[in-house]
Amino acid sequence: MSLLFKNLRIHQVFGANTDVGKTIFTTALVRASASIQDAVFYLKPVSTGPMQDADDEHIKQFAGKHRGKVQASCLFRYSDPVSPHLAARLDAQRKGQEVSVPSDQSFVNSVAKHVQSCASRLSSYAHMYVETAGGIHSPTLSGTTQVDSYRPLFLPTILIGDSKLGGISSTISSYESLLLRGYIVDCIMLFRDEYYRNWEYLIPYFAEKGIHVATVDPPPPRLDDVRHNWASTENYYDTIVPSSRDGSIFDTVTHLDTCHTRRLDDLHSMPRRTLESIWWPFVQHGLVKEEKDVAVIDSASGDFFSIYKGHSMQPESIPSSPSTDSMLELQFDGSASWWTQTLGHSNASLALAAAKAAGRYGHVMFPRATHLPALHLAERLVHHGPGKGWATRAYFSDDGSTAMEVAIKMALRAYSVRNGGRLDSAMRKNLGILGLKGSYHGDTIGAMDACEEGVYTCEWHDAKGYWFDPPSIGIRNGEVHITLPSAVAAETTSGSEDIQAQSLSWAYNVAERLKTPLADVYRTFIRRTLQRLRESGQPPLAALIIEPLVMGAGGMIFVDPLFQRVIIDVAREDSTADRPNHSAEWSGLPVIFDEVFVGLYRLGMESCGPLLGVNPDISVNAKILTGGVVPLAVTLASDSIFQAFLSENKTEALLHGHSYTAHAVGCEVANETLRIVESIKQSDDWNVARQAWDASCTSEDPAAIWSLWEPEFVHRLSTQPSVKEVMSLGTVLVIKFEDGRGYTSDAAERLLLPIKDCIPRGADGAQNQPFGIHFRTLGNVAYFMTSLNTSLETVRRIQDRLSEALGPS
Amino acid sequence: MSLLFKNLRIHQVFGANTDVGKTIFTTALVRASASIQDAVFYLKPVSTGPMQDADDEHIKQFAGKHRGKVQASCLFRYSDPVSPHLAARLDAQRKGQEVSVPSDQSFVNSVAKHVQSCASRLSSYAHMYVETAGGIHSPTLSGTTQVDSYRPLFLPTILIGDSKLGGISSTISSYESLLLRGYIVDCIMLFRDEYYRNWEYLIPYFAEKGIHVATVDPPPPRLDDVRHNWASTENYYDTIVPSSRDGSIFDTVTHLDTCHTRRLDDLHSMPRRTLESIWWPFVQHGLVKEEKDVAVIDSASGDFFSIYKGHSMQPESIPSSPSTDSMLELQFDGSASWWTQTLGHSNASLALAAAKAAGRYGHVMFPRATHLPALHLAERLVHHGPGKGWATRAYFSDDGSTAMEVAIKMALRAYSVRNGGRLDSAMRKNLGILGLKGSYHGDTIGAMDACEEGVYTCEWHDAKGYWFDPPSIGIRNGEVHITLPSAVAAETTSGSEDIQAQSLSWAYNVAERLKTPLADVYRTFIRRTLQRLRESGQPPLAALIIEPLVMGAGGMIFVDPLFQRVIIDVAREDSTADRPNHSAEWSGLPVIFDEVFVGLYRLGMESCGPLLGVNPDISVNAKILTGGVVPLAVTLASDSIFQAFLSENKTEALLHGHSYTAHAVGCEVANETLRIVESIKQSDDWNVARQAWDASCTSEDPAAIWSLWEPEFVHRLSTQPSVKEVMSLGTVLVIKFEDGRGYTSDAAERLLLPIKDCIPRGADGAQNQPFGIHFRTLGNVAYFMTSLNTSLETVRRIQDRLSEALGPS
Repeated sequence: MSLLFKNLRIHQVFGANTDVGKTIFTTALVRASASIQDAVFYLKPVSTGPMQDADDEHIKQFAGKHRGKVQASCLFRYSDPVSPHLAARLDAQRKGQEVSVPSDQSFVNSVAKHVQSCASRLSSYAHMYVETAGGIHSPTLSGTTQVDSYRPLFLPTILIGDSKLGGISSTISSYESLLLRGYIVDCIMLFRDEYYRNWEYLIPYFAEKGIHVATVDPPPPRLDDVRHNWASTENYYDTIVPSSRDGSIFDTVTHLDTCHTRRLDDLHSMPRRTLESIWWPFVQHGLVKEEKDVAVIDSASGDFFSIYKGHSMQPESIPSSPSTDSMLELQFDGSASWWTQTLGHSNASLALAAAKAAGRYGHVMFPRATHLPALHLAERLVHHGPGKGWATRAYFSDDGSTAMEVAIKMALRAYSVRNGGRLDSAMRKNLGILGLKGSYHGDTIGAMDACEEGVYTCEWHDAKGYWFDPPSIGIRNGEVHITLPSAVAAETTSGSEDIQAQSLSWAYNVAERLKTPLADVYRTFIRRTLQRLRESGQPPLAALIIEPLVMGAGGMIFVDPLFQRVIIDVAREDSTADRPNHSAEWSGLPVIFDEVFVGLYRLGMESCGPLLGVNPDISVNAKILTGGVVPLAVTLASDSIFQAFLSENKTEALLHGHSYTAHAVGCEVANETLRIVESIKQSDDWNVARQAWDASCTSEDPAAIWSLWEPEFVHRLSTQPSVKEVMSLGTVLVIKFEDGRGYTSDAAERLLLPIKDCIPRGADGAQNQPFGIHFRTLGNVAYFMTSLNTSLETVRRIQDRLSEALGPS
Repeated sequence: MSLLFKNLRIHQVFGANTDVGKTIFTTALVRASASIQDAVFYLKPVSTGPMQDADDEHIKQFAGKHRGKVQASCLFRYSDPVSPHLAARLDAQRKGQEVSVPSDQSFVNSVAKHVQSCASRLSSYAHMYVETAGGIHSPTLSGTTQVDSYRPLFLPTILIGDSKLGGISSTISSYESLLLRGYIVDCIMLFRDEYYRNWEYLIPYFAEKGIHVATVDPPPPRLDDVRHNWASTENYYDTIVPSSRDGSIFDTVTHLDTCHTRRLDDLHSMPRRTLESIWWPFVQHGLVKEEKDVAVIDSASGDFFSIYKGHSMQPESIPSSPSTDSMLELQFDGSASWWTQTLGHSNASLALAAAKAAGRYGHVMFPRATHLPALHLAERLVHHGPGKGWATRAYFSDDGSTAMEVAIKMALRAYSVRNGGRLDSAMRKNLGILGLKGSYHGDTIGAMDACEEGVYTCEWHDAKGYWFDPPSIGIRNGEVHITLPSAVAAETTSGSEDIQAQSLSWAYNVAERLKTPLADVYRTFIRRTLQRLRESGQPPLAALIIEPLVMGAGGMIFVDPLFQRVIIDVAREDSTADRPNHSAEWSGLPVIFDEVFVGLYRLGMESCGPLLGVNPDISVNAKILTGGVVPLAVTLASDSIFQAFLSENKTEALLHGHSYTAHAVGCEVANETLRIVESIKQSDDWNVARQAWDASCTSEDPAAIWSLWEPEFVHRLSTQPSVKEVMSLGTVLVIKFEDGRGYTSDAAERLLLPIKDCIPRGADGAQNQPFGIHFRTLGNVAYFMTSLNTSLETVRRIQDRLSEALGPS
């Protein structure tokens, strides 16, 4: 709900401390603005302390004198001169009422609503100043500190510096806390105290950072006589805001106008400049040539982007004139920014974690070295995370693709060491991967060679291996179906490609289903196919790679977990090699789980091993691992894989590494992410969601089948005429539309067009800010993905938008 | 110079503001410690304000009473009650002296020296409290703010919170500024003010972050009568530090002891735990099995690691007993942490930049979107950076290896589109790369396939292309030599493999050397070889890839730039394809510059294009790009390369992308890095260094040949008997030892062993802290690399260590 209006320049005023002159500076700015503009708004969302507070009164009286031009407002007022969260409580106690304070969401909505109503009444350019209470981190009504609670509004900021002893420190640290929330700090203002002379220090300090520092003389001493004091203060304002329009306050007003214009110009020019200098991944620039096709992300908060809409504003499509509408609109980040978001954008804890590691280490050399963030992360993942019970080591790299290349190198070597005797050089170069059709393990050429040729592959692509066409699971017309490929269907007694499952939890109960005839069909089919391959004289298969449960980039295919379990079992028994001596060793083929997309609770479970009932020998995590902040990936391996590289010969080591391997920033952010995820697992929203899908499902079940998307919604959606199939697990909702053209199809994009729009009013109600939905499609498949901490309320609002767009069932 | 002693637990006391009770809490802690331990040290490095300040006097009197047990010290004292940087100036003015304040370095050295002298006198476990002045960001004597100036000492911290109105805010933002410098905050202490009740808010706030908050009742009001006031204050201390040893202060002392023990235990257990859970890149674990082989990096600052030395402490090798030596030692980061460091570790500006982007965006979706950090970076690189004059677009990815895969995909496609008619499917899959022997473009399998087979390659490696054995440049016995491969030498009139160059600047003057007979020899040789290749029926070569000037991972080979220039010229003329219509189009083969290692001033120049006198069609930057904080890479391309992917067909786009493409944190850090680098280019140190190598060399010359390593040193080193050859450009110094076993050699490691040691005293003088040197070797080659802002003083100290280790010339 970021607010940015062409004709209303808004600044929020934060104080480096309490009693630094916030109200005085704001009053001066209001007066200066009033002498230039036709309209000035002063908003103090929360005010504490006695009503007769002199500073506050001056602005109100000024507004009274300039009625129709200057408007002063306050949304919440409490009389105790303490921090707002305390004042609200004291106030309620005094009145004998129960304490009831607005949530952060509704507080911010109140401010936004007020601002929008001011903007809607404008006929010409105006200024607005929003004055906060106390210091930047003073708690607001809910108890959240101000910098965090105001953050969704993302207003450009004036920081009032502290001119007294210690004020250099509080000014700089307040500035740093503002930066940690990503705020745009347009200027710092402080009194020109001639004794402490903080301004002398702060002006060059901030000039180096490109920040304007304005100073004015301090106010006169407070006089005991109320009338004299009033006159003396008015006189002071007349001095610092002279009728000549000269001096520091006026310079500041001009500077703030310049900042506003520059920001608008920047936003407006960004699409053109982007189209001229950026080469996007996965984008056909020949199809994206218009400025309006470029999403200008001004900031992001929680699950929402704040996107500039200046380019798409068409006079005919926008009811009111552009000048009174916010130039920014909210868009739900429906792909979780390419599957990376865990805790929402701009999470303050993660920003702090990143800062902490950058401040303690920067990046430090990793081979033969260690540091706490990397060690903690490795131990967590190996012993208490997805590696629990089987992995012994963590190998860090930069992204899912590089981590999969590491995994492949591990598996190929392990296989070669054990089967070395029967491999010639050509066979070694062409060792095959056993996998599933639709697999995707990243974009580097080696990772691509582990998959079939497809639209994504480049000139050098050389598919090495064999890929089974897998059975899949989907919900059609409210019923769970398992769809078999024809070759498998032919082996069943019915011969049918369509098997109806009694429920989703049954379909995912691998242990039970292993006892069914279908398991035997799968096993026989896979064994026979592999036997045929062995006899064909092709280079041997050296590793099994699967994306457990869901193949993401390949089209969000929910694979029948029973098939994956059986293929693992068969791959492990299928060995022409020397059998290992003891059970902890890998057998048959090393098994790699590519959990880059599915792992770490994206599907509601930490790892898919418990559901499949087997552990891999190697697994890969990335994306969500670092909470959606910076790239980092990890390849976990069992000891028997590690042993394949162990010798006294340097050249037999795993000679793969990237300069930033195990960079401290990524590791620390990952540790903080995983720490927070532990509490989300126990959250009310997750409990509610789990219960809705399966009453017996608890946070302790490592293989629970549930989703943040509501079961009724998912089932209803699957009955829509345009919809072929729906599936949902954890944070993921997938809608497959009726259109067979695959990756080149535009069905999903076309049918869901309406949800992109931000609806100014209507179904969403007055309480919440309107938003559009930013989503990605894979041909005829659309998917929506939340963060792990997206509220059920937000999920429901998206469900409503989807239901609306796809028509009645 | 991080300080950590087993028997001396040290904490520094920072204040969330001035007048929050720092001295009172510190006095209480000293008293409590004194009632438990045999020795307590109180150090106030800088004191301002009148000598008779009551708080300060209490601690001094207490120390006086407990002489021999409690020692109170102050290093710098000024009488004006203002910020230290001002107090020092006022003091000098009053005395009619010139203002002379210690530099940050010498200030920190004074503190370290004092601490070490205290530690050296210990016979049992003791506590030390170092009290800072004012707020955390109050400027210290030099004007640097305290959090930054104390940072190299990396002392664990007690933050004294602010209990007054606004104190919640100043406490939290001070905490955040401490975290931004990576400090360990062990506890927060504040007064239990019953009116504002900040502790009620702060205890749970910090509990969530795992931080202990201790509170005590505020001191009694100050009494006018000095004697009564003294008694009342003493009585207060007796109350909060009771003889029963109960209460919050004692709990805090115990907590701080626990933190100290835990940190030591952590450091001590880290090698074992690392050996049990980490799989390092490029390390043969079979050769690194001892705890002492693991470098435990506790923190890093500037060019130095702070490394735990508890494991390597051998009673016989350490003169004094371990209990009085710091458990941490400085090691110069001699490989710039695998070539990544630009501005030194833990640079506060870069940590802030990272925090700012994390706070504003987190990571946001990039395809079809844009955000300021990415756009600014793209524009800077394309228009004002290495892409100046030829590139039109920036393609982001995660590391040098992925960026090189992008570059290869670009080149292969560009070649295929133009030469499509004559390529069958097999040829397309095996399009070759033209390159040089010793090339290295990253560890992913595709990037490896662009190089010859070698020790680094994995099972799947399939070298595609042809690699010339290149002539190289080196300094031997004080003279510059060009060494020709025998095949090339045979073509010269002399037939000699050794050509002596008149100077280094001559050797790198490509424009002049193009007119020499050697250029013709190169040209003829390359043309003939390529002609032979074309006639051999091998798949065609489709791209030329070079690492300009230096092949890094391949062995730090300084290639003769004339040879690189000629091969580019020939590759561009060598075309059996349709000739392009206009000159901006690539011709012959697309030319890729892999500048991951050499670019962005690593070698003293932004890009090697100006020196070679030609621009590439595609180039790659990474490592240094992000200032050594997080991974990010960029592939720049010319418009004619971009056009090869442009159509109306989605599948013809460059379908390569990583989830974190153009992540805001990396882009913002890169922008800040490049901003700071601009000022380093004009720095005194760089001017001095440039002048030393070539008097005519200026900061404006894009192809200047110079180094931060001194020419006399480099030449002298090249005359050492164990040294075969030396070379240096920019920040890089390479020493090739007499041993032919290449990557498997241990000559470099063996000969340089002595420089690893941290020499406690001796040649380095008293002014500077001693340090060891952490470096990497590539077989018989050792290299040393500074950051761009490493001081010449530090460079000289490393030169001295190297000279010492390698013996007299």
